[in-house]
Amino acid sequence: MSHHDSVLSRLADTLETRRPTSGGDPATSYTARLLSRAPDAILKKVGEEATELVMASKDNVSDRVIAETADLWFHSLVLLTHHGLRPEDVLAELARREGLSGLEEKAARKTSNP
Amino acid sequence: MSHHDSVLSRLADTLETRRPTSGGDPATSYTARLLSRAPDAILKKVGEEATELVMASKDNVSDRVIAETADLWFHSLVLLTHHGLRPEDVLAELARREGLSGLEEKAARKTSNP
Amino acid sequence: MSHHDSVLSRLADTLETRRPTSGGDPATSYTARLLSRAPDAILKKVGEEATELVMASKDNVSDRVIAETADLWFHSLVLLTHHGLRPEDVLAELARREGLSGLEEKAARKTSNP
Amino acid sequence: MSHHDSVLSRLADTLETRRPTSGGDPATSYTARLLSRAPDAILKKVGEEATELVMASKDNVSDRVIAETADLWFHSLVLLTHHGLRPEDVLAELARREGLSGLEEKAARKTSNP
Repeated sequence: MSHHDSVLSRLADTLETRRPTSGGDPATSYTARLLSRAPDAILKKVGEEATELVMASKDNVSDRVIAETADLWFHSLVLLTHHGLRPEDVLAELARREGLSGLEEKAARKTSNP
Repeated sequence: MSHHDSVLSRLADTLETRRPTSGGDPATSYTARLLSRAPDAILKKVGEEATELVMASKDNVSDRVIAETADLWFHSLVLLTHHGLRPEDVLAELARREGLSGLEEKAARKTSNP
Repeated sequence: MSHHDSVLSRLADTLETRRPTSGGDPATSYTARLLSRAPDAILKKVGEEATELVMASKDNVSDRVIAETADLWFHSLVLLTHHGLRPEDVLAELARREGLSGLEEKAARKTSNP
Repeated sequence: MSHHDSVLSRLADTLETRRPTSGGDPATSYTARLLSRAPDAILKKVGEEATELVMASKDNVSDRVIAETADLWFHSLVLLTHHGLRPEDVLAELARREGLSGLEEKAARKTSNP
């Protein structure tokens, strides 16, 4: 396994320890704080980080595009943790689409039924 | 390497072939169409998918949370492709934060300087 | 009453006639279509138009800032209609904040308790 | 003029006094602080408030729908102020669409050319 590849899984493992039911402490952990006020606190960050990614892209600054995408994925992972889901579930869905009919077709079908 | 782990990389490889300069055809490929109208067409989708993820989470339907996260990550990857970036750049940034000082601290610092 | 001032109220009056229970026809009216699939179809547009406003502002094109703000306010009005609310309720809330303690103070208090 | 009708105009008048070039003081005024870091600080709030409106609507709580719409419109007004624009410009655009061909047709045309 490459050093990149397991980042999402390792990160999800850590996030799970921050759940209130796993002893995560809102007083000392940012993630535990988000999870203790889920889903709204997390969703607010998802919306905020998506907006910041849009701004970074319009400014065309690569470092900020990377950092804001990292923020967006991080908060997506916190949301998955809240719902008892894993990044592997999302990657499996992406792989499934790719394998079944191609992501292209999936996305095209979707937009033709807005 | 697990079957999950290389999904983002494989997907990014495919997306690169859809760039206008790589011969991507907007007439037949949804991704090529997005890339030919980048960044605005892609950013519009990022905002839209973030909103749909918020709705899926509020409805508390796991399958939709997975599907909308997949949509959000997919369009993030298309945006990275437009900027000549790779998912490995984002994963390295997430690993770097984890390694340096912990993601918790990074996120906490960020929110204390909004 | 100036010709500008009653626009939101007049518009809300029209939107109310598009509610399914008021005989709005999704086959012929865009608003009736949104209301028949409320709130998700409307919320998706709110998120989309907010993103487009962000892009127009970053491009610093006044005509587009005006047009996208109009789109955002229009879809906000459709959402109010879905909830049986009126633009006057929102304007009264804005006036109330202004009168009670100043919008400045209200907003400042809010951000200090994120 | 009704007491509701002039709220947006009065509010815009106040916001203009918060512009850095008009002597707005970021140390004491929330709006002056946003305007001194425009457009990004304002746009971040637009994205955030749109997300909060989506959540309030999904929770179906009227008071919060009103409050979040007020927040969204307030930050739209701050953005207009940054661009040297006025709410009357947006209301005129809404009235123009209504008058020319009906808002329905305008919106329908738009979605058929996404």
